[in-house]
This record gives sequence, C-alpha cells and structure tokens, in this order.
Amino acid sequence: MPESPIRKLMPYAEIAKKSGKTIHYLNIGQPDIETPKVALDAVKNNDLSILSYSPSQGFETYLEKLSAYYKKNQIPLHPDEILVTTGGSEALLFAMGCITDPGDEVIIPEPFYANYNGFATASGVRVRAVESKLENNFALPPIAEFEKLINPNTKAILICNPGNPTGYLYTKDEIEQLADLALKHDIFILADEVYREFAYDGAKHYSIMQVERLAEHAIMIDSVSKRYSMCGARIGCIASKNKELITNAMKFAQARLSPPTFAQIAAEAALDTDDAYFNEVISEYVERRNTLVEGLKSIKDVKVAVPKGAFYCTVELPVEDSEDFAKWLLSEYEVNGETIMVAPAAGFYSTPNTGINQIRIAYVLEKEIILKAIHILKLALQDYPN
Amino acid sequence: MPESPIRKLMPYAEIAKKSGKTIHYLNIGQPDIETPKVALDAVKNNDLSILSYSPSQGFETYLEKLSAYYKKNQIPLHPDEILVTTGGSEALLFAMGCITDPGDEVIIPEPFYANYNGFATASGVRVRAVESKLENNFALPPIAEFEKLINPNTKAILICNPGNPTGYLYTKDEIEQLADLALKHDIFILADEVYREFAYDGAKHYSIMQVERLAEHAIMIDSVSKRYSMCGARIGCIASKNKELITNAMKFAQARLSPPTFAQIAAEAALDTDDAYFNEVISEYVERRNTLVEGLKSIKDVKVAVPKGAFYCTVELPVEDSEDFAKWLLSEYEVNGETIMVAPAAGFYSTPNTGINQIRIAYVLEKEIILKAIHILKLALQDYPN
Repeated sequence: MPESPIRKLMPYAEIAKKSGKTIHYLNIGQPDIETPKVALDAVKNNDLSILSYSPSQGFETYLEKLSAYYKKNQIPLHPDEILVTTGGSEALLFAMGCITDPGDEVIIPEPFYANYNGFATASGVRVRAVESKLENNFALPPIAEFEKLINPNTKAILICNPGNPTGYLYTKDEIEQLADLALKHDIFILADEVYREFAYDGAKHYSIMQVERLAEHAIMIDSVSKRYSMCGARIGCIASKNKELITNAMKFAQARLSPPTFAQIAAEAALDTDDAYFNEVISEYVERRNTLVEGLKSIKDVKVAVPKGAFYCTVELPVEDSEDFAKWLLSEYEVNGETIMVAPAAGFYSTPNTGINQIRIAYVLEKEIILKAIHILKLALQDYPN
Repeated sequence: MPESPIRKLMPYAEIAKKSGKTIHYLNIGQPDIETPKVALDAVKNNDLSILSYSPSQGFETYLEKLSAYYKKNQIPLHPDEILVTTGGSEALLFAMGCITDPGDEVIIPEPFYANYNGFATASGVRVRAVESKLENNFALPPIAEFEKLINPNTKAILICNPGNPTGYLYTKDEIEQLADLALKHDIFILADEVYREFAYDGAKHYSIMQVERLAEHAIMIDSVSKRYSMCGARIGCIASKNKELITNAMKFAQARLSPPTFAQIAAEAALDTDDAYFNEVISEYVERRNTLVEGLKSIKDVKVAVPKGAFYCTVELPVEDSEDFAKWLLSEYEVNGETIMVAPAAGFYSTPNTGINQIRIAYVLEKEIILKAIHILKLALQDYPN
C-alpha cells in the first residue's frame, strides 16, 4: 500500500506542535462548516433499543429519499440502482472489486485523490495516469491521450468531478467526450461526484449519470461527507443502472454485512436540509476561494489553477521540491510563532517526478486564517533557503 | 464473489411472508438482546456540532479504554497495537490485505463463517479447508491435517474462537498446538474472537494473544457487534504485537480515512457496561442453548454438536440436502401458519459436497420461540417428502 502524501509530514507537524508553534492546516479536506442540525438531531432523538444490522444495501427509507434527491439533481436513479456504502471509500473499493481482476488497469487524469492509489493497490489494479495541466486549470486532457493507454486490460476511466485536488469542474462537453470513448472501447466511466454541490460562478455540475447512452457503462461514487460536512459519518453510495454491476456490488456489501446504522439515520435526515444551508455554505466557499486565489496571485512566481468547484486549489510554487518546503515550513519556519501545513502535490500524481513543485491547499478555513496563511506563505517563499 | 448461504433462501422467505406465514428466523446471528443503555445514551447525549473524521486508527480515548478491557481479559495489548475498524469485517479485510498477495493461501478449519470466503475472494486468496467433525463437536482437527496443506504460498491459519457456525470453544492446548505449527512454518495465526464473552459451562476463553511466543505471528480480529448486541454500530478492531503488520494495516486504514464516529462513541461507552449485563446475557444464552440442544436431541436421527460458546449450533438432519429442506420449509410447509428459516450448512464448508445434510441454528431468539421452532422442525422432518 502506498503512503498518503500528508502522512509523511505528520512527524514534522508533531515536532512543530511540541515546540509550541501554531499550525494552520491547509492540508486537509475536513470542513469547519457545521453539520446540518437536522442530521445531528435525528441521531440524538433516535429510539433504538437494539442497534441491529441494517440491510446490506442500506435502509429502504434512506434509499428512497436518496433516489428523490438524485432526481432533484437531474440524476435519474431508482432506489434499486443505489447501494449504501461505508463512505465513498468503500464505494470505490466495491467498484474496483466488481470491474477489475488483479493485473487490470484503470486510467485516471492526474493529479488525483491520492487514496485512489490505495484502493487500486488493494485490488491489484494498475493505475495509468494522463497528466492534466495547471496552466489549463486541470481541464480534461485531450481524449487521444486516454485512448493511447487503452488496451485489453483497461477496465475503466476514473474521474473526480469536481476534482480533488484540482477543483476542476468538468464541462458537459468533456463528460460527453469521455462517454464516447468509453462506449467505443466498452469500458466503464467511474465518477467520484462527492463534491457535486460545490460548483461555483454559476457553473452547473454535469453528472456522468445524465448521459443516457452511457447507462450500462457509468458508475457513480458518492458520499455525504463533504455535502453535509459529516465526514465522520462514513456514509456513501455506489450507483449504476448496470444491473449486473449492482448485483455484484451487493455480494461485497453482504460480505461486510451492513453500513453503520447511526450514520445512516444522520444521512437520511440530512436530506431534509434546507436549500438555504447550501446557499450559505457555497457563498462562504466562494469568498474563501476568492480570498485564496487573489492572495496567491499576489505572490511572485506563484501559479494558481482557479478552482470552479470542490474546495481545493493546486498551486505551483517557485521551489524545487514542495515536500522539502512543506517539511521546512513545519520544522524550521515560523512567523510570530505561527506556520502552515500544506500537502505536497507529488503524492497526487502517479507519474514520477511530476508536480514536485506544486502543493494542494484546502480552503476549509475561515477567511481570516486564509489571509494569515497567505501572509506566512509569502514570507516563507522569500526566506526559504533552498 | 461467492454468494452467502442465507441469501439463496431470501426469495423463498419473501414468498412465505407474502403468503401470510409467520417465519421464525433461526438463520441469523442478530441477537434480540438489548444494547447496553450506557452505549445508546452516549450517542444520544453527544454534543458534536461538526461530525468530522476521527483519526484513522480510531479515537485515542477509545483505544486506551480498549487496551484496559483487553488487559482485564488477560490479553496484554497496548493502544498502539490496536487499530479500530469498521466492524470485524474490515479488520479481516485489512489482515488479508496485509499478509497475503493474490495467489496466496489461508487454511481454515471448516465449517467456517461463510463471509471468510468473500474476504478471501476479494483479496485474491485461496482458502484451503481442514474438515472438523460434528461427532467431535467440531474440535480442532489433528494438527497434521493442517501441516499437510502448508506450502510456500500459505500465509496464515484462520480460526474463529468460539466458532461460528460451530459454537466450539478451542482449548488452551489446541491454541498452543496451532501456535507451535505457526512458529515452525513462520505463518500467521489469525483469530476471530468476536464471541470471546460467550463461553459457557465454566469454560474460559483462551486468546491467541495470550501465547507469548506467538507475539509476532498472532493477529486478533474483534468486534463490538455481538458482545454488546450492537451489530449495527460497525465497530471492530485488528490487534497485533507485530509492529510491521500494524504499520501496514494503518495504510489500509488511512486509505478509507476513518471508522464511523457515532459508532465509536457508542463502542467506547459500551466498555462501561456493568458485568451484571454479561452475567444476565450469558445465563440467557445458556438457557436457550440447553433448550435447543435438548429439544434437538429428542428428534429422531438428528445429531447435534453441543456448543460451548457463541450462539450457534450446527445440526445434522436425516435429510439428503438441507438446502432443499430449508427451501421446502419456507415455500411448502407450515404448522398453524408458522414455519422456520434455517441456514443450510453447505455454505459454511468450502469442500464441495460436505455438510449438505447439516444446518446452522442461531439461538438468538426467546426460549418460547425456540421450543416452538423445535416443534415445527420435528413435524417437518416427519412430513418432508424427499
């Protein structure tokens, strides 16, 4: 199993904390937004006396409400086409298990969510990467680049939309191009859409499930973690109109018995969250993003891919090795007792020696802290000796 | 992925339900015992406003209390040697992932918990079975039978103690024999000890973790599901004194981010459950077991392995094919509008054509229902045409 890109920095963060420094964590995707009260209350008010297994597919009432939620989002999904999982993570693991055998390949535009590597390794699957470029805001690379890699072992193309760590929101046209390619070569499109709601500047999220002709070849991964700021629930789902896929995923689901009960109660109630909650959350993220991007652009030789969705931003720094810089920030540097922790982006690439001067910043912190963090980064880049 | 032995019967159960029959479910391990109030209350009284990720290893406070619980049970485990998982299922999956590569082999005495097959398949691992015998109450088969199967691909022996579906509680001597074999061949002993508390007739559970010389070769799988009748929590753990193993398991844990937060709150609080709870629960199970075993012994040509632990009982019936019998019970049979659902035992064996005249009964129902179920079984065996 590969190690997470952030994990490597942990010992340095420990040392920084012990030395009394305040660390601003720009490295993690844990939102500081409050979980909707309706979700928390549902758990507080539960009246279970036996905490028993739920159905392996998830509670029927939850599946029905999920189906209604998707329909509201122009995603036509019947409850039978959805399977509740323990986080988006498990959904990905099930998908990999269903569509690949050891030695098979999955193509992913890089940079990508580092844990995809972990799930691929756990399934004995080889990741083939197609590089997307910071100067294009990490738009979909030319479709020919994907096609070049397709061979009899290729089982799927995996995308994250909007993207972590890129913040890129795929256009309808890009999704359609991927669909054509998948149909041409009879492979799956696996879409991680956990940031669906976080689309900015009036842009609309276009789901892989909206491409009608792709019904048998589309698999959607979802999660309540980011949507309702409830990462600790561990509730996600896998959805597909491909009946064979769902039947196979059910076997994995049965082997692990059931998704967590309390968390399903919270997730089901969360679906009653008022639209006002999202409007507020999205305005907040847009303001943070604007603050961050503007601040970063004001630093000499720093390049930013402007994110249209999610809450990440991949940034190129005028340093040779961002991992060394990130370690230095923790172990050697401080501004009035404060420093920042960033995620070196190399861990989000699977091609060696790619993205080594980039970092990922998650703008899940208050505007004031983002401003402070930018100030520290600016000074640090001036003071960094390497 | 193989299908669960119970799943095959589901359509028959649906038909029986639709026809208005009452089904007594002897086929599932979902206890009807109430979850300790202290656990449920902790969740009701939680004051989280953001349901965030917990540490991948689990909450520190929970790990510390778990360590104390194990010490109380003569199992010396430091918090660092424990990793909280999403159910015992995930612990098994992590263990398989850590110690095997596709093509490797794990030896398991059969009959065994059917989902072991699922986890093995998911990891590309081949299960090699050693048959244990009903006439010996499913005691450990001769150690030479295990040794015969050991080859360079053999990575572990997996046991369930006390056993599902056998109810067999391994003696200290049996555990020591397995330990010697593991050390001789440098393989792991993987012990699923989720039924630890359910040891009857004054017998004491002897854990694989109590064998000091086995420290580097022992991996324990645990879960709160059965202990506190909280199957829906989905909290388990993997524990080992082998540092490399825990380090590798942490990589799997990080890839899936964290175990569920609410469920950890419940599991941590459950550790405060009064001993009186267990005394009561165990008396209840002993009474149910006695009722069941006595009742079964009173039926002509029925053979019973007397369980010393857990809450399962594997039974040989005077039928040729217990799966056919189980389907017939649901679809064709009734006594005053009532019938029973049992688990055909063939699904608990990996050797073909083994155990096909056996069933598993879970005695997780009230004594009165057990008596009624025995009555129905007795009549059914007289009336069964095949």
